[in-house]
Amino acid sequence: MTTGMSFTRAWEPRVGDAFGFALLDYLEHGSEARSHFIERDDGLLETIDTGVLFTQGSDWSVAEAPVGDRAGQRVLDVGAGAGRHALPLQESGREVVALDVSPGAVEVCRRRGVRETFTGTVFELAGTDPEPFDTFLLCGNNYGLLESPAHGLSFLGALAEVAAPGAEIIGTCVDPFATGDPLHLAYHERNRNRGRHPGQIRLRARWSDVATSWFDYLFVPVEELKELAERAGWELVEYQPGSRPYLAVLRLHEARAAT
Amino acid sequence: MTTGMSFTRAWEPRVGDAFGFALLDYLEHGSEARSHFIERDDGLLETIDTGVLFTQGSDWSVAEAPVGDRAGQRVLDVGAGAGRHALPLQESGREVVALDVSPGAVEVCRRRGVRETFTGTVFELAGTDPEPFDTFLLCGNNYGLLESPAHGLSFLGALAEVAAPGAEIIGTCVDPFATGDPLHLAYHERNRNRGRHPGQIRLRARWSDVATSWFDYLFVPVEELKELAERAGWELVEYQPGSRPYLAVLRLHEARAAT
Repeated sequence: MTTGMSFTRAWEPRVGDAFGFALLDYLEHGSEARSHFIERDDGLLETIDTGVLFTQGSDWSVAEAPVGDRAGQRVLDVGAGAGRHALPLQESGREVVALDVSPGAVEVCRRRGVRETFTGTVFELAGTDPEPFDTFLLCGNNYGLLESPAHGLSFLGALAEVAAPGAEIIGTCVDPFATGDPLHLAYHERNRNRGRHPGQIRLRARWSDVATSWFDYLFVPVEELKELAERAGWELVEYQPGSRPYLAVLRLHEARAAT
Repeated sequence: MTTGMSFTRAWEPRVGDAFGFALLDYLEHGSEARSHFIERDDGLLETIDTGVLFTQGSDWSVAEAPVGDRAGQRVLDVGAGAGRHALPLQESGREVVALDVSPGAVEVCRRRGVRETFTGTVFELAGTDPEPFDTFLLCGNNYGLLESPAHGLSFLGALAEVAAPGAEIIGTCVDPFATGDPLHLAYHERNRNRGRHPGQIRLRARWSDVATSWFDYLFVPVEELKELAERAGWELVEYQPGSRPYLAVLRLHEARAAT
């Protein structure tokens, strides 16, 4: 006869630049900063060790170790975060542009000394007709920014538009199928049932009472990355299997360089 | 003209015994266990150090240090978790009942050697007309289980129903107002605007893709705890301020003992 108070009402954290806020918080407070999380849309939560995003050079992961030697003179760091790749490359004399969609991340890059930054997507950057790049970094599993096979083609196409002859993409990716975890296997199956690529993961970052909008990240085995890349004008020239992640280097086909 | 896919659709993790699953996972896998979180309904997330719930005796927090000496012969550990208080008290010769609403937590207590357990609330336990208890433990901030001032009266009343003469409640609580954190201050204000006690916090535990139902926890300053206790037949006989939490001991008024 009465309507009790419901304890299961829907609610959402407020939407904002949780990733950027977390980086700014860490820049200002170090290990006293609030925790920072990544949430998958099946409810799986993971704590992000924000400090790792502030490491430099010699502290890079094994998978990323070749970046320092391999990077060309003009570098676009895609999803630059706190600038952990941009800074040492800039210090080594490269001309680096740190790109991130997170205004907070870009602010952190600037405060830490990155001289050139761009707040936005690679599509928005391509629209500004920048000087061509020799190297694109997709470190920290940022091959995930391909989002989906279809979007990945556009994304790799946008990089080709702003690429110098012989340009390379150096980055890391996770093979989604290199797991026996029932939770991940169930997630793949759920994706298949929804007509999504099994390796697509829908994520949001969380910090304090703020969450980013949901975004898709794409994890693919290297064979699939190779195939996608070729359709977009890039050739797989190096592959270093690791446990997780693996390193993959793509090189622009000669015919595809920006003028 | 088209309906795009929404990236902000509502979703919820599946509802279940996330707290119990986290304890079982830790019991079986130790530091390899999946992370365990507590989420407040404004979106604030915190990682729970599950290992702390498995510490014993000498590792108890400063606030809880007096428990070992003070506990009587027959003890009800309310919200026993992994049994970190129940086990050493049982080893010291006390007769301990570990109570928890989480079936997983009770399972962990049993597997770790707690001989008497009860799965359910203190109201449900009181319904079984158990032998009276000398001591009730509300450690680990479990004065929070008062939930609200009104519920707190019933809760303390239920304990009085199953209390031996001179019985004590020994537990810890957090003074919600001992903070300058704007996020917490905003949460208090939101509570006031909704007619809730400012120190009420709505929480759920999360582990893997599972979340418990939302539940309320009540944090009050000691003056308020004292007042509530008196209305339910309990007297504040010891208070040890700490930073957070504080220790409070309540003793049953003589007229209120179970026969």
